[in-house]
Amino acid sequence: MPKPVLDFWFDFASVYSFLAASRIAPLADAAGVQVRWRPFLLGPIFATQGMTDSPFNLFPLRGKHMIRDVKRSADEIGVGFRWPSVFPQSAVLASRVALVGLKDTWGEDFSRAVFHAEYAENRVISEPTVIADILTKLKVPVDATFASAQADEIKAELRELTAEAQRREFFGAPTFTTQDGELFWGNDRLEQALRWAKK
Amino acid sequence: MPKPVLDFWFDFASVYSFLAASRIAPLADAAGVQVRWRPFLLGPIFATQGMTDSPFNLFPLRGKHMIRDVKRSADEIGVGFRWPSVFPQSAVLASRVALVGLKDTWGEDFSRAVFHAEYAENRVISEPTVIADILTKLKVPVDATFASAQADEIKAELRELTAEAQRREFFGAPTFTTQDGELFWGNDRLEQALRWAKK
Repeated sequence: MPKPVLDFWFDFASVYSFLAASRIAPLADAAGVQVRWRPFLLGPIFATQGMTDSPFNLFPLRGKHMIRDVKRSADEIGVGFRWPSVFPQSAVLASRVALVGLKDTWGEDFSRAVFHAEYAENRVISEPTVIADILTKLKVPVDATFASAQADEIKAELRELTAEAQRREFFGAPTFTTQDGELFWGNDRLEQALRWAKK
Repeated sequence: MPKPVLDFWFDFASVYSFLAASRIAPLADAAGVQVRWRPFLLGPIFATQGMTDSPFNLFPLRGKHMIRDVKRSADEIGVGFRWPSVFPQSAVLASRVALVGLKDTWGEDFSRAVFHAEYAENRVISEPTVIADILTKLKVPVDATFASAQADEIKAELRELTAEAQRREFFGAPTFTTQDGELFWGNDRLEQALRWAKK
């Protein structure tokens, strides 16, 4: 019997997507659920809802608390965390490269490495050199991958994933969706989403 | 040795406070933590932050999802849930009565019953008859309690709790605070707050 599937929708700009990406693989393995990684862009979705910046920048008290909150959660799951100098960061390049990798074998490792660079090492993931470094460490050819990532097909795929997120009325990231159309929002719902996927 | 203490700050208007109130007692018992119930009013705090309504009304997609989200969580913890016809509801009367009860023995049972009336039975908790019904079921004298709840001392206490919440930069409910000043926001952080309180 095939494993139940959970779609994991993330934005590299989203710090709670970083937490989810850091812990989803072992939890899904333990639950016997297959995860499909789905990068998308939250910016156009927030814009449609009248927000022109991260809600964490728009509501300063909440933003201030959020950094403390993420630090505590990162400590509990044992991953490094350092608030980046630039927030939010453009995820377009990283998302396109991730889509290339997700058709190959290295997409998930690449995605985790991007989140780590951004949220543990204070690197700016919109910079091609940062992405190139990550690819090199993963022994993925840089130039060919950059060329693939700029192909019309990949650009269209990222646009389509973002459009699908918008059609399905996403309003934040991470978002988890099950095959029966259920939607779960936030790193805090990962366990519940996995339980639902197994029903 | 005295038990470690966790302060549980809730607003009867807040649906995630309802979920936290429904599950905090057994979790705190199991953790060996003493919980102090602290009603406060979120309205003045939201107003200071430029919000004139519940964030769930201000951001419709999130509000729509929230109802589904609460339903799933209520199902998992085994409590009834029905989205109320009136949202948010004024918590002033219920909070004052709760403060009277929290100085006596019936404050927590009363608070849970108020949340249940509001979020499982579609009753309007700003109506004195609804509060009177709850008191009667708890065998608490209604008239004397209403008189106590309108005393200046209790009114001042609710104002002071709300002012304290504002000074401590709360931005939502429920909020949990530990004796060393750590702040946790949201029903999802209850377990983490209990772990922290025990450190």
